Amino acid sequence: MVGLFVLLTAGAASAAEEGPIVQSLEQGLNTVWVLVAAFLVFFMQAGFGMVETGFIRAKNACNILTKNFLDFCMASLGFFLIGYGLMFGNGNGLFGTQGWCLAGLEATVGGIPLYAFWLFQAAFCGAAATIVAGGMAERMKFPAYLIYSFIISALVYPIVGHWIWGGGWLSKLGFADFAGSTVVHTVGGVAALMGTAILKPREGKYDAQGKPNVLAGHSIPLASLGVFILWFGWFGFNAGSTLAVGDGTLIGLVAMNTNLAAATGGIAAMLTVWKRFGKPDLSMAMNGALAGLVAITAPCAYVAPWAALIIGAVAGFVVVRGVELLDRFRIDDPVGAVPVHGMCGILGTLSIGIFGKASLGLAHNGLIYSGNPTQLAIQALGSLSAVLFVALSMGAVFKLIDRTIGLRVSRDEELRGLDIGEHGMEAYAGFQVFTTS
Amino acid sequence: MVGLFVLLTAGAASAAEEGPIVQSLEQGLNTVWVLVAAFLVFFMQAGFGMVETGFIRAKNACNILTKNFLDFCMASLGFFLIGYGLMFGNGNGLFGTQGWCLAGLEATVGGIPLYAFWLFQAAFCGAAATIVAGGMAERMKFPAYLIYSFIISALVYPIVGHWIWGGGWLSKLGFADFAGSTVVHTVGGVAALMGTAILKPREGKYDAQGKPNVLAGHSIPLASLGVFILWFGWFGFNAGSTLAVGDGTLIGLVAMNTNLAAATGGIAAMLTVWKRFGKPDLSMAMNGALAGLVAITAPCAYVAPWAALIIGAVAGFVVVRGVELLDRFRIDDPVGAVPVHGMCGILGTLSIGIFGKASLGLAHNGLIYSGNPTQLAIQALGSLSAVLFVALSMGAVFKLIDRTIGLRVSRDEELRGLDIGEHGMEAYAGFQVFTTS
Amino acid sequence: MVGLFVLLTAGAASAAEEGPIVQSLEQGLNTVWVLVAAFLVFFMQAGFGMVETGFIRAKNACNILTKNFLDFCMASLGFFLIGYGLMFGNGNGLFGTQGWCLAGLEATVGGIPLYAFWLFQAAFCGAAATIVAGGMAERMKFPAYLIYSFIISALVYPIVGHWIWGGGWLSKLGFADFAGSTVVHTVGGVAALMGTAILKPREGKYDAQGKPNVLAGHSIPLASLGVFILWFGWFGFNAGSTLAVGDGTLIGLVAMNTNLAAATGGIAAMLTVWKRFGKPDLSMAMNGALAGLVAITAPCAYVAPWAALIIGAVAGFVVVRGVELLDRFRIDDPVGAVPVHGMCGILGTLSIGIFGKASLGLAHNGLIYSGNPTQLAIQALGSLSAVLFVALSMGAVFKLIDRTIGLRVSRDEELRGLDIGEHGMEAYAGFQVFTTS
Repeated sequence: MVGLFVLLTAGAASAAEEGPIVQSLEQGLNTVWVLVAAFLVFFMQAGFGMVETGFIRAKNACNILTKNFLDFCMASLGFFLIGYGLMFGNGNGLFGTQGWCLAGLEATVGGIPLYAFWLFQAAFCGAAATIVAGGMAERMKFPAYLIYSFIISALVYPIVGHWIWGGGWLSKLGFADFAGSTVVHTVGGVAALMGTAILKPREGKYDAQGKPNVLAGHSIPLASLGVFILWFGWFGFNAGSTLAVGDGTLIGLVAMNTNLAAATGGIAAMLTVWKRFGKPDLSMAMNGALAGLVAITAPCAYVAPWAALIIGAVAGFVVVRGVELLDRFRIDDPVGAVPVHGMCGILGTLSIGIFGKASLGLAHNGLIYSGNPTQLAIQALGSLSAVLFVALSMGAVFKLIDRTIGLRVSRDEELRGLDIGEHGMEAYAGFQVFTTS
Repeated sequence: MVGLFVLLTAGAASAAEEGPIVQSLEQGLNTVWVLVAAFLVFFMQAGFGMVETGFIRAKNACNILTKNFLDFCMASLGFFLIGYGLMFGNGNGLFGTQGWCLAGLEATVGGIPLYAFWLFQAAFCGAAATIVAGGMAERMKFPAYLIYSFIISALVYPIVGHWIWGGGWLSKLGFADFAGSTVVHTVGGVAALMGTAILKPREGKYDAQGKPNVLAGHSIPLASLGVFILWFGWFGFNAGSTLAVGDGTLIGLVAMNTNLAAATGGIAAMLTVWKRFGKPDLSMAMNGALAGLVAITAPCAYVAPWAALIIGAVAGFVVVRGVELLDRFRIDDPVGAVPVHGMCGILGTLSIGIFGKASLGLAHNGLIYSGNPTQLAIQALGSLSAVLFVALSMGAVFKLIDRTIGLRVSRDEELRGLDIGEHGMEAYAGFQVFTTS
Repeated sequence: MVGLFVLLTAGAASAAEEGPIVQSLEQGLNTVWVLVAAFLVFFMQAGFGMVETGFIRAKNACNILTKNFLDFCMASLGFFLIGYGLMFGNGNGLFGTQGWCLAGLEATVGGIPLYAFWLFQAAFCGAAATIVAGGMAERMKFPAYLIYSFIISALVYPIVGHWIWGGGWLSKLGFADFAGSTVVHTVGGVAALMGTAILKPREGKYDAQGKPNVLAGHSIPLASLGVFILWFGWFGFNAGSTLAVGDGTLIGLVAMNTNLAAATGGIAAMLTVWKRFGKPDLSMAMNGALAGLVAITAPCAYVAPWAALIIGAVAGFVVVRGVELLDRFRIDDPVGAVPVHGMCGILGTLSIGIFGKASLGLAHNGLIYSGNPTQLAIQALGSLSAVLFVALSMGAVFKLIDRTIGLRVSRDEELRGLDIGEHGMEAYAGFQVFTTS
């Protein structure tokens, strides 16, 4: 979406040669494309929900589903009231200062109607918010989560978004993040890291020597379904970020790169975990595909297919080692949100500086084409800025919640399960479920 | 879809200025849009299936899935043989009298090919039919359901549809129902009400004093997935009902309004249930989002985004109180089909008379713009007519089935579960499931 | 997709009359259509996964999900490196000989960008590969499956594809297979037949007299969801195979026929199983809908809606009897992959020779229009050739794997479940699951 203003100009140029009917048809086609993509990105919410639910224990399933469900509702509201204005309203290099409730904005953005553009962006905002639910699963209070989700979607996510996609300071430096490895995934992943670190590990996750115990997920089929839904939705996430169909060439490249990186991410993670632990673990293979998808999100429009294969494979390797690394620091991330979205978000953002091509719209050629690290340096600066801003702002938010209404449920409630404690219901009535581990 | 004939004329007008290739391209784009929307509406069938299954007990899961699966098959057949002709064939103000098996119809409707239009409408018809399965769950005989589903999709639904979308008497009065709060949801909801009232409550639902017992749903994760699938499909349901892409402005508005109403519906229902019962219950929050979606279905193209926020929120409140109201009358609606589809279908239909704008295609401005209750009166008349017609016709159908082949399974079969009794199978072989409650 | 070269020419013809902007718009619209269809076909992978998982026992759920997940990853890679070149590269009548890693190919194919076309075709390739997982479920080694899935997607599937869609010998004879009853489903179904025959039945499937025991699937709700996802994705599978939108007429016909055949397939299978076994079994009804979908895949663009109703109904009947037939030969196909994809793939391919219309693009009118069996004979020849080639090649592959790394897990592992044995994990941690049957 770095090309938003380029597209506007290009649209204006071609419009001169066309009649008004063809122009309207072009805008209609672009709107259809972006709306279908928005629907797919919305559907990723179901994917996140199923992955997060499947990877945790049954006694907390309703709780995470409620969080996942309500954070999208809160994001829709918060991004309408405040977030969109902060992100895309005119303003300064740091944030927008108009467009609250979409009032006073032009009827089209980048060649598509404002409302269609809003829906696409709101679905992105919801994705950033929900990533955090997984990292903080199985011990965070529900009211605390509601407050958090409004803040990240109305304030924190939109500010980083303004820097990169709203005409802010990073976009002016030539920083590139086509579909949001930084804007969505690094933001979500770093917020999850702060949250899970402040919350502390789940009861029983680490023994006295710091050795991690497996607190096994209760439904691998649901998690698997969730991964497929995410992969499916990611086609909208990445290819929809073109915002314009053109003659189809760019959207074809983006969609293909997205698929290739997911595939090699899955294969690489499976091989890595097989080699290290002796068995091809499905959870890791699936997280590898997600890692590949996160990593290709920033570079999907700027790199060749062979580079997508490499970026995905590296992400698949990184995610396995990332999970081990967190355990070494006793940071308990129940579903792997930090390695998948945080680490591979950074990886994907940097990969543009290595494999990106100026001919595809970047400010500078990547390192392997030019030997010049300029684009890589810009990418590193942008990624680091987002990491620091989110770490500080969300760290403060979580600390503040912790000191006021409290962030973590009681030990008793945690052992019994948050479904009963927070919601007064259970996920699988009629089934015998063991809640002791 | 009230604008069907308007669109036809508009298409004809612009066609004169275009060459045949641009004209064909425009029709192609509209067809792609309506077909993608039809696929999404079809997919809602899976959403209904998962919601209904998740909200009932495991021992009846196969039964409701079979009903849900077969009613779409029956609707596809019935709406091809008879239903489409009754609904869209030329005829009188009450029903169409030609077009059986689509024979003798023009090749395009409203600017898109007949077959694409049929698929979109058939998917709607299936949705109306399947709503009833939830309300009559856990005690209705399977053969009775098969017969019911053919009748509603071949006869009852198409007749109401003809009144409103097929050029019948309500459409001539200026009654507006953009995507079917009345045509689909009120029809389905009122049929569910008649069915569940005639069936009587499930064994053990009310004690001697009439106090309701919770017969808890067996898989909240499946229900949650179903709600996301429904929300996803609803984008097709509402935005596809434009039938034409135009320059994208209208489809953007409709999609955004749909999302906003779902979000405030979910939030309002959660807050209402939290306040009344002390816990944020996920089932209610999800039903609140569905209620918001049902309510915005009629007005989605006629109201501003702020009105969508209000309509959704009111629906979220109504659905919680509606569930309580039904229990007071000992009407046992296992999944909340009547409050969600019936009550909020009426609510959405009336909301056009309050928040609708003539500039968006209505016959009259709504109450808050004009102070004039004309449109509201028309909406009330249309809603009431549909309620009465469905209550009488489906009441007669259910009574007739009850007196002949029987509507309700035996007490023994109900206690043991309909999966074994009706289908000779169980949903979760290998799991220990308690069937006593 | 038999019309690929026809489309190319047609595109060139109309292009002359258009300006470059309209031409680009047309290509953009076609790309959007094919990409959305590709996303839907990709999503079918989730459908296959849920159907296969739901229909087998819980102790093997992770195993089949891992196979299902990795075969798509392997297909994506194999079809990029080798498969696409073999299938669509220029070459001889038997296979293509260029286009490895898509190098040296033209930027557009059939009027859409190469990369978009690749993604659509890669998703098809993945579908053919994953069909086999179901037939060989609950006893096949995971490493053997990985090797198999690379070979079928990189070599076997592309060769049959070249014959029919890549300009090979069958396409020159006038053989027609619009969306792949032969290319995808017969290939997958016959490979599954060879695999399951070589593997031998599961422990306990047949008693000493050869009477089959029911080894019941562990989650009918997941299977049901999977069937809906498949039906949903099939709209992309069939209607996307047009590769061009045109004025929408053809895509409307294809989508409608697809839906009608699925519906009558479901109804016919339900009635057949009801009559034969006394109960309307949901598993069979769902397999009937899939059978209808498989059968309509080849003829969907060449037949009238009434013929689609018949083709679907026959497929629904055939699938029930096909399951019985396999049991008579003690061929243990846990999910019915052979009757659904193999038998109904052949049925659908032949049905073109009976119900197909030359006016819709066939070389010859079908038997009922012309009384001439030419097209039927061509269809039979093509189907038989594919069956023989796949039976021989995949038979050799499975035999070779069996003699080297081994095809089947040990008896102990099979009894305990492949989830623990192959992957060191369980699907439903915290639930009590019986693994004895």
